[in-house]
Amino acid sequence: MNNHLTPRGVCLPLGYSASGVATGLKVSGKRDCTVVFSEKPASSAAVFTRNLVQAAPVQVSKCHQAKSPHARAIVVTSGNANAATGERGLKLAEAVCRAAAEVLDVGKEEVLIAQTGLIGIQLDEAKACTAVKKAAAALSKDSGVDAMWGMATTDSSEKIAEVQYTFEGKSIAVAGMAKGSGMIAPSMATMIAVITTDASVSPEILQPLLREATDESFNATIVDGACSTNDTLFALANGASETSEITGPEHPGYEPFRSALKQVCHDLAKLIAHDGEGAGKFFEMRVDGARSVEEARMAARAVVGSSLVKCSLSGEAVYWGRILAELGASGAQFDPNEVRIFYGEVEVFARGEELSFPFKEVAEYMKNSEIRISADLGAGDSSAVAYGCDLTYEYVRINMEKS
Amino acid sequence: MNNHLTPRGVCLPLGYSASGVATGLKVSGKRDCTVVFSEKPASSAAVFTRNLVQAAPVQVSKCHQAKSPHARAIVVTSGNANAATGERGLKLAEAVCRAAAEVLDVGKEEVLIAQTGLIGIQLDEAKACTAVKKAAAALSKDSGVDAMWGMATTDSSEKIAEVQYTFEGKSIAVAGMAKGSGMIAPSMATMIAVITTDASVSPEILQPLLREATDESFNATIVDGACSTNDTLFALANGASETSEITGPEHPGYEPFRSALKQVCHDLAKLIAHDGEGAGKFFEMRVDGARSVEEARMAARAVVGSSLVKCSLSGEAVYWGRILAELGASGAQFDPNEVRIFYGEVEVFARGEELSFPFKEVAEYMKNSEIRISADLGAGDSSAVAYGCDLTYEYVRINMEKS
Repeated sequence: MNNHLTPRGVCLPLGYSASGVATGLKVSGKRDCTVVFSEKPASSAAVFTRNLVQAAPVQVSKCHQAKSPHARAIVVTSGNANAATGERGLKLAEAVCRAAAEVLDVGKEEVLIAQTGLIGIQLDEAKACTAVKKAAAALSKDSGVDAMWGMATTDSSEKIAEVQYTFEGKSIAVAGMAKGSGMIAPSMATMIAVITTDASVSPEILQPLLREATDESFNATIVDGACSTNDTLFALANGASETSEITGPEHPGYEPFRSALKQVCHDLAKLIAHDGEGAGKFFEMRVDGARSVEEARMAARAVVGSSLVKCSLSGEAVYWGRILAELGASGAQFDPNEVRIFYGEVEVFARGEELSFPFKEVAEYMKNSEIRISADLGAGDSSAVAYGCDLTYEYVRINMEKS
Repeated sequence: MNNHLTPRGVCLPLGYSASGVATGLKVSGKRDCTVVFSEKPASSAAVFTRNLVQAAPVQVSKCHQAKSPHARAIVVTSGNANAATGERGLKLAEAVCRAAAEVLDVGKEEVLIAQTGLIGIQLDEAKACTAVKKAAAALSKDSGVDAMWGMATTDSSEKIAEVQYTFEGKSIAVAGMAKGSGMIAPSMATMIAVITTDASVSPEILQPLLREATDESFNATIVDGACSTNDTLFALANGASETSEITGPEHPGYEPFRSALKQVCHDLAKLIAHDGEGAGKFFEMRVDGARSVEEARMAARAVVGSSLVKCSLSGEAVYWGRILAELGASGAQFDPNEVRIFYGEVEVFARGEELSFPFKEVAEYMKNSEIRISADLGAGDSSAVAYGCDLTYEYVRINMEKS
């Protein structure tokens, strides 16, 4: 987690600068355009939405990535998703990359792009290009926080994570920033995240490590089960720490880097769940004793994604019946008589029936802003955790309107 | 649909009586115990929840059904689900069936049972047996509506459907009643429904016909995606119309009965969606042009189940981007550039982009209490419909509390 008073975010690792500026793309006048720049070509990796409907920036970034496994810059604009915008949308995303490339004096294919906001509305190309030029001209090493806010939409809290460790006598940093609070589902949320590191990692290794960390963290985070058209996670590794390049699991730098990357992803995922649209409470559901990791994930995610469980949380109700019902409907296989359910540390259900438990203590526990519930399915040795939040009037209010 | 001023519900077909009485099982003092009785042994069929956690009444009814394909009575109690209640719960459900069988002078295995309400709370056996005896003693041919309310929990509207047709010169009736407004998901909702008919149908044919009608109707209805522990649909066919027994698809009575049964199931499913917890609007999503019926269903259900789409409906927002995003995330395969989306009759999206359409007209349309949206995926010839409702503050309020 962040150990600084003012986090430096994606600028913490050596060799990166960033900016997040207000350019008028958002009617609110808030920051709406972010650029992250690496002084040297960086190995790049990306995870994109699994939605069949892919926004223009997703298509363009995939194409740029296919042409080169290295990148110099990432551009993110917010306020308009540039999704379901047809040929014009694709042309605009390409033009924005080109505009950034010109100012930064890099190749167009070395620029990756993400966009977030409303779906289906055409963005003005000249306005978007002017925006990215302004952001590219504002790069600094002190703008890690601004860069995060330039990606934000309905976000109400800062989402920055930083991990540092020592390898080959040098300090290595892995840092990230994320946006996202609605449309958060296990197939990548409506989230955009950028991770930077000064570790030296080959692109062939960076990609599977990013995918693995995503499965455990962002893909375990559910606000409303909606899988967006724009979800994008980028990672850049520029080697500015001047340590030896990690090329495989046998490299001594592999495990510490893998662990730091996972930590950053988990921290960002939890920050997204904490800031779920309208959320009053953060919710962590742990499932143990599943037959496989897949089943443990299915079960934990079913509980976290349940509207009824989420309403119980906002009502601070001790209603383990809904937890059990969601476990049973999740597709995970178990014997209900072997299941144990815990609210915090207190066991409330076992052997097919409610236990006699200190109800007042558990009712008091439900008043916390972070709720942890766990279940042991008694069917195997596998575990998984999912992150989410409660369902409130405020979620409905936010999403009743179009923006 | 119902053509009577006062519907007779499950008492409309010949040879049935029913009751729905208040016995104190619900603290509110409302009707909480229902009995449906057939004067002659009736072919019985049932569809139960797919949840791994099955309530005691589900287990007991399955066992009774396995012992005999004919039934005489159905008992439903409301206020307590008798789910996750262990051995005591099973014993209680058996005792309730036995108590009904005594009063009605039928075999214990000829009584089927459903229960609905809170999960995980033990019900008092003596109280439950007294309740069912009171209901069994109150049977009449005029209590079809009372019987529906005896099954109700958070329901706020009457859910009764009736269809009549002529076969072999006799009038045949198929009628049903349902409860359900929350925990409504495609794997049977938290719904209990009872269908009666005086058609003569062999149990071997009644079961697959009920399953088929369920897949198209109740399984296409989503309020909140929650699959309950207690979902149960019973059908009784007592042959009191004295028409010849339907034993297979080649029988001339097969198609008219199949069609009437589907109609009753669709009508009840729509009534459930209309009465979704806190619902302000009924929502019907139609998907055409899918590669298969399965994909059409997946797509229609994904849209109807989406919290974001549901919030858009309650906010009366014309936001087709969310419809498209849910179609894309549903798992159905299609080319986004081939998709067409319609709000009511107005086409708003085609060829990958928003069309220029009469926005004010569509915005006006969104103020209706019944909203129909459709999409043509342009990928094949298959269609499906799903039923649902909007997501409102009221849904959250209802489910914040335990009861």
